[in-house]
Amino acid sequence: MPHIPLPEHLPGITGLLEYSRVTAEPIRQLTQFILRGENSLSPGERELIATVVSHHNECRFCTAAHTAAADLLLGDTETCRIMKQDIDATPVSDKMKALLKIAKLVQVSGKAVTPEAVAFAKQQGATDVEIHDTVLIAGLFCLYNRYVDGMATVAPADSQFYRGLGQRLVDNGYNRLPNGYDHLKKQNQPA
Amino acid sequence: MPHIPLPEHLPGITGLLEYSRVTAEPIRQLTQFILRGENSLSPGERELIATVVSHHNECRFCTAAHTAAADLLLGDTETCRIMKQDIDATPVSDKMKALLKIAKLVQVSGKAVTPEAVAFAKQQGATDVEIHDTVLIAGLFCLYNRYVDGMATVAPADSQFYRGLGQRLVDNGYNRLPNGYDHLKKQNQPA
Repeated sequence: MPHIPLPEHLPGITGLLEYSRVTAEPIRQLTQFILRGENSLSPGERELIATVVSHHNECRFCTAAHTAAADLLLGDTETCRIMKQDIDATPVSDKMKALLKIAKLVQVSGKAVTPEAVAFAKQQGATDVEIHDTVLIAGLFCLYNRYVDGMATVAPADSQFYRGLGQRLVDNGYNRLPNGYDHLKKQNQPA
Repeated sequence: MPHIPLPEHLPGITGLLEYSRVTAEPIRQLTQFILRGENSLSPGERELIATVVSHHNECRFCTAAHTAAADLLLGDTETCRIMKQDIDATPVSDKMKALLKIAKLVQVSGKAVTPEAVAFAKQQGATDVEIHDTVLIAGLFCLYNRYVDGMATVAPADSQFYRGLGQRLVDNGYNRLPNGYDHLKKQNQPA
């Protein structure tokens, strides 16, 4: 049960974004820019960064939601599954593996990101912007995961819920759904 | 040395916010809303939350900057100093102590925030919104601390620098300084 009363039909982050709309707006904007804005990393690659951080923060809601989005964007369910166990074995580029390792270090602490980890990513072809964006995405999900679990929001058990949410994140990104999309909101309610 | 080239005269978060302006804008907005917007917690109390999280994340730049802002807003340097050692001994209200303890738990993990810690804060008079805002501020500083240290930004050693930055955060908040404030920017440069 959440630590404060939140809309029951909106689990995880979704209820918090409704509860506090004035803070939700810049959170949504930042997420849209960094996960969907023009970038040399694909949206699927950026969802992998969100997923690996959420997984190691053990945030059930965020891990399931961003796994679903990454799976849809990448067209398979194996990449996320393997990444959670072993970044080196993940079927992504060497550059992406190096960036995912940086994200995993950020999950622990900013101080855990070593010059060696960054130099290695650069050797694999990562640009300064890609390193910056990886650290910022990882930091953002350290915020999200703490917001979602720090308020003890509900994580639905039904995997169908996350497929619906993942599809919405693929189709609509992170901006607020405009009025008139209530049917879509209802589809994303847990059974 | 930062992991990527950043403006040398802008240490800590300030160089990152210039490096990536498109993401800086919503980060600034969110911070302004949650630390300076209308709230039953004073700006000084909210800076204490930012400080305790930054301190336990061992982020030198953020700890020094928000300590300076809190000291100015509270009118003393003892509150922050004691808080970093012992929340119970800090000269703040019992409600504020309970909220600072929640923030310290968020620093560890969202999952570390227990129903007991929240119930205790409510017993001390904390409202739902205050609990929400405490968790969100703590989460936001887990982002900031990881962004600042994950990019290995420079933290000036000169305490005068942080007094200048703290004064600017008190006077101007977290919005971008408008053009024409270059003299103020220069004052905040490390010696």
